[in-house]
Amino acid sequence: MLRMSTLFLRTLREDPADAEVASHKLLVRAGYIRRAAPGIYSWMPLGLKVLAKVEAVVREEMEAAGSQEVHFPALLGKDAYEASGRWDEYGPNLFRLQDRKGTDMLLAPTHEEMFTLLVKDLYSSYKDLPLSLFQIQTKYRDEARPRAGLLRGREFIMKDAYTFDIDDDGLEAAYQIQRQAYIRIFDRLGIDYVIVNAMSGAMGGSKSEEFLAPTEIGEDTFVRSPGGYAANVEAVTTPVPDALDWADAPAAHVEDTPDTPTIETLVAAANANHPHADREWTAADTLKNVVIAATNPAGERGVLVVGVPGDRDVDMARLEAALAPAAVEPATDEDLKAHPELVKGYIGPGVLGPQARPADIEFLSEDDATIPYMLDPRIVPGTRWITGANEHGKHVFDLVAGRDFVGDGTIEAADVRAGDPAPDGSGPLELARGVEIGHIFQLGRKYAEALDLKVLDVNGKQQVVTMGSYGIGVTRVMALLAELNNDELGLRWPAHVAPFHVHVVATGKDHEVFDTAERVATELESVGVEVLYDDRPKVSPGVKFKDAELIGAPFILVVGRGLADGEVELKVRAEGSSENLPVADAVAEVAARVQQALSG
Amino acid sequence: MLRMSTLFLRTLREDPADAEVASHKLLVRAGYIRRAAPGIYSWMPLGLKVLAKVEAVVREEMEAAGSQEVHFPALLGKDAYEASGRWDEYGPNLFRLQDRKGTDMLLAPTHEEMFTLLVKDLYSSYKDLPLSLFQIQTKYRDEARPRAGLLRGREFIMKDAYTFDIDDDGLEAAYQIQRQAYIRIFDRLGIDYVIVNAMSGAMGGSKSEEFLAPTEIGEDTFVRSPGGYAANVEAVTTPVPDALDWADAPAAHVEDTPDTPTIETLVAAANANHPHADREWTAADTLKNVVIAATNPAGERGVLVVGVPGDRDVDMARLEAALAPAAVEPATDEDLKAHPELVKGYIGPGVLGPQARPADIEFLSEDDATIPYMLDPRIVPGTRWITGANEHGKHVFDLVAGRDFVGDGTIEAADVRAGDPAPDGSGPLELARGVEIGHIFQLGRKYAEALDLKVLDVNGKQQVVTMGSYGIGVTRVMALLAELNNDELGLRWPAHVAPFHVHVVATGKDHEVFDTAERVATELESVGVEVLYDDRPKVSPGVKFKDAELIGAPFILVVGRGLADGEVELKVRAEGSSENLPVADAVAEVAARVQQALSG
Repeated sequence: MLRMSTLFLRTLREDPADAEVASHKLLVRAGYIRRAAPGIYSWMPLGLKVLAKVEAVVREEMEAAGSQEVHFPALLGKDAYEASGRWDEYGPNLFRLQDRKGTDMLLAPTHEEMFTLLVKDLYSSYKDLPLSLFQIQTKYRDEARPRAGLLRGREFIMKDAYTFDIDDDGLEAAYQIQRQAYIRIFDRLGIDYVIVNAMSGAMGGSKSEEFLAPTEIGEDTFVRSPGGYAANVEAVTTPVPDALDWADAPAAHVEDTPDTPTIETLVAAANANHPHADREWTAADTLKNVVIAATNPAGERGVLVVGVPGDRDVDMARLEAALAPAAVEPATDEDLKAHPELVKGYIGPGVLGPQARPADIEFLSEDDATIPYMLDPRIVPGTRWITGANEHGKHVFDLVAGRDFVGDGTIEAADVRAGDPAPDGSGPLELARGVEIGHIFQLGRKYAEALDLKVLDVNGKQQVVTMGSYGIGVTRVMALLAELNNDELGLRWPAHVAPFHVHVVATGKDHEVFDTAERVATELESVGVEVLYDDRPKVSPGVKFKDAELIGAPFILVVGRGLADGEVELKVRAEGSSENLPVADAVAEVAARVQQALSG
Repeated sequence: MLRMSTLFLRTLREDPADAEVASHKLLVRAGYIRRAAPGIYSWMPLGLKVLAKVEAVVREEMEAAGSQEVHFPALLGKDAYEASGRWDEYGPNLFRLQDRKGTDMLLAPTHEEMFTLLVKDLYSSYKDLPLSLFQIQTKYRDEARPRAGLLRGREFIMKDAYTFDIDDDGLEAAYQIQRQAYIRIFDRLGIDYVIVNAMSGAMGGSKSEEFLAPTEIGEDTFVRSPGGYAANVEAVTTPVPDALDWADAPAAHVEDTPDTPTIETLVAAANANHPHADREWTAADTLKNVVIAATNPAGERGVLVVGVPGDRDVDMARLEAALAPAAVEPATDEDLKAHPELVKGYIGPGVLGPQARPADIEFLSEDDATIPYMLDPRIVPGTRWITGANEHGKHVFDLVAGRDFVGDGTIEAADVRAGDPAPDGSGPLELARGVEIGHIFQLGRKYAEALDLKVLDVNGKQQVVTMGSYGIGVTRVMALLAELNNDELGLRWPAHVAPFHVHVVATGKDHEVFDTAERVATELESVGVEVLYDDRPKVSPGVKFKDAELIGAPFILVVGRGLADGEVELKVRAEGSSENLPVADAVAEVAARVQQALSG
């Protein structure tokens, strides 16, 4: 039995200064965690108890899915991560260090490489497969902006699992087993989730899905359609319209458009001075060319231009996903200095991509001095645009895609909006925010090829193994549970993850009250109910109730004034309800209610 | 039930190239751990199971002792470690890194500072004390020479506990509670241990004891006496002989002793050319002056000379303990260049310490150019010595301590030998080697003072809290259990820490054998016995037996040829015994034997 008089705990009445979201505020105030450094937390006794229960659910379901638990070091040499390319790709997100001999090391953000090498080390035949391994382990990621307490930390606990199969069918089967395990885990934890596509087909077809818990405080934006399509925003693909006939299109013509460096001013000027025959010009008639600076993992920086319809913005997260592993940002004045042909506010295809490239120069060849030009998929042949004429105060009208310009390729970089069509035709998209709690991913042969993991197949031939990786943010899930289960008084844990089931509160100064409370608490423990007994002799009932509500056990049992009438009071935290029970029945009744809550 | 056909495991017939001790060889060969980097290991499924059982014993006994579990980050900012001085003191043993913002961070070797700060953060009154906290956590230490597998690693798991008390009596009580908990833990784990003093009275009186498991492969040398004295070698103090009367001693006289740069040549020359009146000269008549280079945590290097009787060596470990936190090594030729007064092989007190220092110069003052001179405690006033005359080929005879020279102090640096008297008069010492598995330490107020942890006492006055720290190397304990429990065939785990209790081996090709083995294994699991079932269809009995012996479960149950006669064979790994059981009784009998082994 935990006792409030000795439990290592101080509840706080004030929110921590750096906390923005409810879970962060309440987990600190109620004494579950304490900040140790930005994005790094110490765990107090109550926090550890909740964490252990979340871990147990994850572990049980992983084992039920036939996955075997192992444990890798957090501190690793860089060799394997260099072989996979991630030593560079991770950039500043990786904690790097050197040991006393000057050997480069890192704190692992995930362990694809190590799992791959271990299997390579021990296994050599298709008969050893399929294989599924997992660990629950402390991970490190040097986030630029750690935030929201445990939701985005720099030291955190993850369950990461990896599967190894001889062929694609095996991988698909392993993936489905993991997917079902994730469904059971989040169902058992009582978390609503959406399973979203996490990778667009455009990127190469490996399957990847995220489990997102919808919540306003989520960092991830996702979309869903009435017909059941769901994807994170990075993975949404744009339905490509049919090409249009341009036979009737007039020739492109350059017009004076002074003082129109923005889409808004351009549309106004076009309507005033070059009106459309049938209707008003809108931003959707313009082609916006956005200059982007991209930096590859080797640190090489260059510019490219992304062309999108003028009524859309470039979504930097989508752009970054499309150009990964390069990092992107809007080009700076410094970037632009090297390209005087880019006239700010009046940039157009004339100086970009294929149309600016001599016929004998190939895209991305050393001789190519033109700027790569990537187009939104909506800019199909035959569409007509108003866009920059590469001269200050001038735009070109009736510039026809396919006839007057082409891009070096298409790119999914324009923002996704509510009402956009789902790529599978299942209706208009709605946007929502969520927290990523799980990620399942058909890695395929990337790591096995990089690290040479092969086994003999049934014909005695060496085959590269195909892999999946599957992650759950364990500490993040705990924070999310706190985020989803609280009110203005404090936390209200579901029974199966609460640090204890019943908070027994003795109020007043009467010895009989404390004797009875102690007896009830002891009897509850003896029938398997976990109890925190507030046995503090000189603390007011008001403070005790506030603490109990803040800490958030599912049941609060008050032994106090009612005892004179043979009664105790049972409060159900989640319902805010309260009822009196005969003290003689209290243990049996409370134990039954706890049992019900645990199995419910 | 674990099944050999799917268990992630490959046993190896060859010892790993880098392994020297049995536990390291066997834990790798039997598939418990794999090397990931020097001193850093990955944990395979069987290894994790043993580790979990060891952890459970430690956790249960810590909780029974009233200690509450918390968990600190491994990755920490340096501030607290700078305040305590350990950022510098740890030197190259500390893994250091910088985050993306250039903040200095470290991987914590232990957490005294963080516990101190957390208690300071939350507690403020004597009423909050006593308090006992512990964690079981991954720790980091950049060992110069990681060795012996898990016995001395760079990433390892430790249980570290800390107690907080208002006064010395409280600390002593907390210390005794922890000491008893350690005794229960190691008794339950079945490890023989010696509790040794770990700190000499000379160093300041804080109490510290180590739990050492005696074994030849241990890195720590300790002593014990027939009367019950036990200490690690660093903590042994030398009984100081009574001073001698020097009234009859002749005046010191310098003699030619050509070609006597060593004690051996000196003794021979002295006996040949300057014989003693009554007996032969021995090495014990000579005073050996050893030049040492010491480097303090700030990196400043200087030399000192340690004088010991010529029949003893300077024990660098004892010297380092005496001079901590400075690091020491024998002076190099480079060090000696700065001190031409030191004539190698002929160094004597004349150029050292007080006798070389002008009367108006104080020891360790800026004006003092002499070399500090520290003497073994046996060199009491009145003892006579043959020692260097600071001139090549010359020694001085009848040099009397106290009359002709003094030191700047005494130092415990001479080696300890079997037969030396115990400092408490309890008889002659014997030396043995052991592995440190636990360390309990009355820290006192060092960290509380450095980090300003004070609480209000009963009189409303601020008092500095007094602390204890208590460590158990959990992964090291597991390695030690492997070291203490093996034979030429492999591991032989005690039942309470074995990864599973019974290794069921099906031999042959008969379906009935496999059906029976499967049924027996299933029934054993159903009565709570943990089973690994070797269900591999095409593996020879010889290979299966070798694997079972190597892996080392306490019981091996063979279902094979005997089945025709209604019998199975039970082997008890630790005893090397074997007996036949009627198959009908096998489950009940084996379950009873397992139960007996677990409670025994």
